[in-house]
Amino acid sequence: MKNKRLAILMRARMASPTHPVHRQQLLRPDLPPLPPQGATCSGDADDDGSNTARRVSLKDVKELMRASFSIPTDKTDPMDTNLEEFSQAYLGLSQEGRRELLLGLARDYDVDRARVCELMRQYLSVELPHSVGADAVHVNQEYRVLEDGGILAVFYRMERNLRDALKPTYAGFFERLNAHPGGLKLLTVLRADLLSLLAKENVPSLRALETYLKEKLITWLSPASLELHQITWDDSASLLEKIVAYEAVHPIRNLLDLKRRLSEGRRCFGYLHPAIPGEPLIFIEVALLKDVATSIQEVLWDSPPTPEFEATCALLYSISATQPGLSGINLGKFLIKRVIHLLRRDMPHISTFATLSPIPGYMHWLLPKLASQIKLSKSETEDMKHFLEKGSGSNFIEDLLLPEEKEMILSGYLKWLQSGTASEIEFDKSECMDTREHDPGKDVLEIMYKLLTSREWNKSDILSEALKPSLLRLCARYLLKEKKRGKAFDVVANFHLQNGSSWCFGLLLA
Amino acid sequence: MKNKRLAILMRARMASPTHPVHRQQLLRPDLPPLPPQGATCSGDADDDGSNTARRVSLKDVKELMRASFSIPTDKTDPMDTNLEEFSQAYLGLSQEGRRELLLGLARDYDVDRARVCELMRQYLSVELPHSVGADAVHVNQEYRVLEDGGILAVFYRMERNLRDALKPTYAGFFERLNAHPGGLKLLTVLRADLLSLLAKENVPSLRALETYLKEKLITWLSPASLELHQITWDDSASLLEKIVAYEAVHPIRNLLDLKRRLSEGRRCFGYLHPAIPGEPLIFIEVALLKDVATSIQEVLWDSPPTPEFEATCALLYSISATQPGLSGINLGKFLIKRVIHLLRRDMPHISTFATLSPIPGYMHWLLPKLASQIKLSKSETEDMKHFLEKGSGSNFIEDLLLPEEKEMILSGYLKWLQSGTASEIEFDKSECMDTREHDPGKDVLEIMYKLLTSREWNKSDILSEALKPSLLRLCARYLLKEKKRGKAFDVVANFHLQNGSSWCFGLLLA
Repeated sequence: MKNKRLAILMRARMASPTHPVHRQQLLRPDLPPLPPQGATCSGDADDDGSNTARRVSLKDVKELMRASFSIPTDKTDPMDTNLEEFSQAYLGLSQEGRRELLLGLARDYDVDRARVCELMRQYLSVELPHSVGADAVHVNQEYRVLEDGGILAVFYRMERNLRDALKPTYAGFFERLNAHPGGLKLLTVLRADLLSLLAKENVPSLRALETYLKEKLITWLSPASLELHQITWDDSASLLEKIVAYEAVHPIRNLLDLKRRLSEGRRCFGYLHPAIPGEPLIFIEVALLKDVATSIQEVLWDSPPTPEFEATCALLYSISATQPGLSGINLGKFLIKRVIHLLRRDMPHISTFATLSPIPGYMHWLLPKLASQIKLSKSETEDMKHFLEKGSGSNFIEDLLLPEEKEMILSGYLKWLQSGTASEIEFDKSECMDTREHDPGKDVLEIMYKLLTSREWNKSDILSEALKPSLLRLCARYLLKEKKRGKAFDVVANFHLQNGSSWCFGLLLA
Repeated sequence: MKNKRLAILMRARMASPTHPVHRQQLLRPDLPPLPPQGATCSGDADDDGSNTARRVSLKDVKELMRASFSIPTDKTDPMDTNLEEFSQAYLGLSQEGRRELLLGLARDYDVDRARVCELMRQYLSVELPHSVGADAVHVNQEYRVLEDGGILAVFYRMERNLRDALKPTYAGFFERLNAHPGGLKLLTVLRADLLSLLAKENVPSLRALETYLKEKLITWLSPASLELHQITWDDSASLLEKIVAYEAVHPIRNLLDLKRRLSEGRRCFGYLHPAIPGEPLIFIEVALLKDVATSIQEVLWDSPPTPEFEATCALLYSISATQPGLSGINLGKFLIKRVIHLLRRDMPHISTFATLSPIPGYMHWLLPKLASQIKLSKSETEDMKHFLEKGSGSNFIEDLLLPEEKEMILSGYLKWLQSGTASEIEFDKSECMDTREHDPGKDVLEIMYKLLTSREWNKSDILSEALKPSLLRLCARYLLKEKKRGKAFDVVANFHLQNGSSWCFGLLLA
């Protein structure tokens, strides 16, 4: 049964890998049918006789939502049929219908500002003992006096009321949905819809709705409420199907590929939430190896796998989130730490934990840097040179390469030219050769730039070897020193560093 | 293995059922040793050379807590060793030490009131369009103008900042603890300690701490994050041990008793949370019967049990919470509804869902009521009588019993007197007999009162039968009509009514 269902999924995957909508439908069989794009389904859709049975009236959905607001919070019923109907009806709405509904939710059930203002005026009118506040670290004695006088109790009460009043009215709706079976899943759908709407137009009330929902989701999906589950070939087909569908880093090609990723020398762990059963919110794939792999091919296709008792390295080679509505909620951080903790405990002979990650921003940083240095050195006048020699500390010109690196690149380059393989692309050999005499350093930058932009370098062993030391050193500098708002400039590096990596790259030159 | 461990527990339970501390230690083997009562462990305890190894320095625990506050929230690490140490150290503190630590937490890490005031003044200084607030249900057009003008975005930002500022500083500590493995359990211990401290002295700052923690626990223990688990004889001994230890309504006497409650014709369901594995937060026991049982003995000892296909009634005969720190967080409500939903789905032949509950407040209500009516009728003058006959609507005298009920009690009483079994207690028979002539109704109340306070009535079939109709009718009145703040006066009745019961009593006269 399991194999058959998965095999069908695999065939489907193979059949239409390029059509995104079709692919999404095939790969995520649990998703509701996509609403018709651009379909108009406004408030009066229910008066339209031409509606098909599937078509849902926005007015009805709004009514279901409104009904839910009339229930007091302490009467929350986990078997609420009204919420069940709302969920079904929402999923049946067109994109335009969902937009209108969410706008209604954001605007009609906003913060009660009149009440907030009233409570604030009241709060500010009570005399606040000046020492009770921010830096009241050593005021226990004073606190005692205030508590005896009852003034603190007044503040506590006012603050509790203010916290309540500052909650948007829709907060209660989110809470009820969260308590409802299947409600958490719907909340992630709502957030995914909000994110896709906000990508198109920035509506402040929708933005506030999205921000609030994100905050609540972070609370509800605290790592304490997530179950770490090791995914194996013994899991249900419906769960494995989701692994195939959502693996985003290194797509799973066929059943054999999937089985290998769950067998000897491999691990797969997912975070499950009781409210979204049988569907990991995020999962990670690990390979147990003798040493850090130098390519992903090695991980996915090495045969036979390393015997587990010989492994000294756990390579976390892929991590995929499954819920677009949980974007920006960093569950990966917790998953990685839990998994490392578990592996360390169960396999003490594993001492290296590494990732095999791309460094997407490196070339985008290096090439402009090389180009500007080449430009600067060309426009350089004798005066400038004089100026620099006096140590004025100008930041404009810097020595990107060490002298020995320059030497290595140059000699490698010349060797490559002589090897005859260089003829395939157009290099102005004579120019490089001629200019070598007067300032080799300057020209090495040009040579490096040309080689890197030609992408010729990684086809040639001679060039790869020659460039390797400088590329590695510059990459280390890029990853560790280049910052943006105090964080690593590179997004992938930043992800790993935030998750506790201390050294996060093993550069692949092949 | 399982049976041995459980058997030891059973013996322990039998050995010392009366000593509460001893019992608690024996029954809850996972609990840390209770801190020494009244032990002084103040700030300078670590300077005291006589400290034993087990004794923990309050100063050190405070330091661990302080260290945790220095970590920014987005750097929360689920494997935080500092929190691990704090948890261990807290459990090692004496009661007095815990009190001091909690007071420090409540006072030193309170709301930053200076910041709150500043943000409030800023909020109030911005002109608020009057229609955007409480009753802005149909102002979509106006919202659009405001959003285009950017004013709403300003409000959303200010409100978000205010929500943040109104959180006490200790909120972050609770959040970190919740994300930490074992942290949720510690939070329930903190709350249990707070509740027991507040029972002795009402300190407003501790009360505010407790209220805030309760709110957070309600969020974190939303029914969506709880897993409904059917507890069976196949569960681990460590889990079953907890069922034995925490069963609070009808104690489990021996292994046979436990096994019966998990076998044919019986169900036991618990709510498990991923962060507190192997220990249900609350569990409920159900008996599947041919009809509503008339006594708990029937449920616990009927042999053999009803074949399940013949059952038409599910009797929810016991529900027990296991965490004192979750007191007041109504998980029972959700558990009952989930269980009924499940049983209804799997066993459609079951149509009656009932509880077998005591009505603890009934006699406390009925006896004073009878006494005051007797007193009133004795002091009654001819004038009063005249007054009443004219229908002035006085509430002082009411007809507690119907004429046929009076007749029934009186004839039953006389029959009982004549049967000779009445001789065991001192009844002034002659008085009752003599006064019968002039006003039987008034004296019936006295007879009823004497019978009920003598507790003679439920030993005699004659008296039970005679009293049954009036006791049942008055009980219905008590449960349904007597209110306190709009809720049922009886606490047990109120529990059931809040959980969705529509008719909640089957009075037991035996």
